Amino acid sequence: MYIGIDLGGTNIAVGIVSEDGKILIQDSTPTNSARPTTEIVKDMADLSKCLVEKLGKTIDEVKAVGIGCPGTIDFDKGEVVYSNNIKMEHFPLADEFKKLLDLPVKVDNDANCAAMGEYVVNGNGVKNFMFITLGTGVGGGLIINGEMFRGFNGAATEAGHMTLVSGGEMCTCGKAGCWEAYASVTALIRQTKEAMDKNPESLMNELAAKDGKVSGRTAFDAAKAGDETAKAVVSQYAKYVADGIVSMENILQPEIIAIGGGISREGEYLLEPVKKYAAENGYNKFMKKTKIVTAKLFNDAGIIGAAMIAR
Amino acid sequence: MYIGIDLGGTNIAVGIVSEDGKILIQDSTPTNSARPTTEIVKDMADLSKCLVEKLGKTIDEVKAVGIGCPGTIDFDKGEVVYSNNIKMEHFPLADEFKKLLDLPVKVDNDANCAAMGEYVVNGNGVKNFMFITLGTGVGGGLIINGEMFRGFNGAATEAGHMTLVSGGEMCTCGKAGCWEAYASVTALIRQTKEAMDKNPESLMNELAAKDGKVSGRTAFDAAKAGDETAKAVVSQYAKYVADGIVSMENILQPEIIAIGGGISREGEYLLEPVKKYAAENGYNKFMKKTKIVTAKLFNDAGIIGAAMIAR
Repeated sequence: MYIGIDLGGTNIAVGIVSEDGKILIQDSTPTNSARPTTEIVKDMADLSKCLVEKLGKTIDEVKAVGIGCPGTIDFDKGEVVYSNNIKMEHFPLADEFKKLLDLPVKVDNDANCAAMGEYVVNGNGVKNFMFITLGTGVGGGLIINGEMFRGFNGAATEAGHMTLVSGGEMCTCGKAGCWEAYASVTALIRQTKEAMDKNPESLMNELAAKDGKVSGRTAFDAAKAGDETAKAVVSQYAKYVADGIVSMENILQPEIIAIGGGISREGEYLLEPVKKYAAENGYNKFMKKTKIVTAKLFNDAGIIGAAMIAR
Repeated sequence: MYIGIDLGGTNIAVGIVSEDGKILIQDSTPTNSARPTTEIVKDMADLSKCLVEKLGKTIDEVKAVGIGCPGTIDFDKGEVVYSNNIKMEHFPLADEFKKLLDLPVKVDNDANCAAMGEYVVNGNGVKNFMFITLGTGVGGGLIINGEMFRGFNGAATEAGHMTLVSGGEMCTCGKAGCWEAYASVTALIRQTKEAMDKNPESLMNELAAKDGKVSGRTAFDAAKAGDETAKAVVSQYAKYVADGIVSMENILQPEIIAIGGGISREGEYLLEPVKKYAAENGYNKFMKKTKIVTAKLFNDAGIIGAAMIAR
């Protein structure tokens, strides 16, 4: 039995996770990220204790705690080196948590945790697995020989900051042309708005007015309703996604690449053009091919993965 | 003592290599790739025997043979699945070689062998190392935890077929916008010719006329002599190289990335702008940084690496 914590900019999600990666009970509480970090850590520990109790168990029965956190993490030290979302710099998160709940604690990057969660549930025991999440940004996690790959310094795998269009759109990271600047939901919204401006007759304008905003769903919904401009937006977006997926495949040849994040809920509508592009453009023509799938866990991946990394 | 063989489209290069990766003796013979493959294999074995003899040793003293070959290799089977340069399809190269010289034989992709050679000589014992070769194409090899990384199917690491300009220049692999289509010597020659056509007054035209052809050195030589058009070509080319190198760094965070191939002989003239771009654009701002270096072995990397993979 493990505690898995997904520490996000908006919510702290905590779950008690079984040995084989099933959530036994879970709950969440607002992060209120502006307050002192020690208060956030106290809420993480309190909610953990509360859930263990609710389950009719004792803390002694918990083997370890895993915490997923956005930002740069020093996994060996259990330190948040830098997190922009929840203001932390060289914060010894594992040690601070241990002061409140004396258990072995592991801290990892949130995308790595989500990758490990998907791997445990979606990985079918393969040795090499890659998880790509399409959200506000584009994140990734890579499992090699069944273990989380972190690079020599712990800063891998920032797949979203691979260049997709040299000299192209500026990315929030300060480099031009990152995959993230084309394949994130943020990028899709930008692409949708550009197409709406140029095509006022497009159904997308009507849907966005009804919703009160342009979202990652606007173009997909209008495309499904037959709007040609929206179809072109979705098609170009899927090509950007696919182009990065095929790059990952050509470089790393993982047995499975799983696509997660909000956009992956579009399922086959996104997956089918990506798979078609990969089949036509992948470099490997002679060996077994990488399987491209959508993620299965959505919001639970972080909790499960954090627990499994602690395991 | 090992035999390392670099089977290229033009030459068969053979070397006897010591336990610690030093070439004790080497020689080469033309491949004549149009003839039957069995004849090529016979020349490989004959030259190997001849070199062992010249060294005053016997075949019993050789522990294993490594063969590097362009194309798709099934490492476990010792089979060349497909090679375009030396016409082979599902050719059991290890078994055919063993018939002539009964020793343990390993066959691997030539870029993987070069990567392993550079790693042994240039790797300073680091665990994660990447080698990128800028030649007719752009190849790569990745060492993780001291071992050759091949992906689940043996088809990794085709870093040259990562997209660098989505929808850009057509690559020989059939996909648009590959890094190879911008950062190979072939691409540099194309970029040089384009600039020469637009700028007939450029020194590059004079140098190319003198040489009888445009080569990968034309732009570098003219730039060093102060030609502004050539400087712009070199600067843009270095940016393409750097953009891909930074992508590799962001994804994989190897401790060292070594750049090899003919162009790497330009040394600091290429390396300096690449390092500058990486320092300014790498995603990792807080952890130890990847070291970017030029390769040291040039043509010997293939022989040494093949031997070290057999080891």
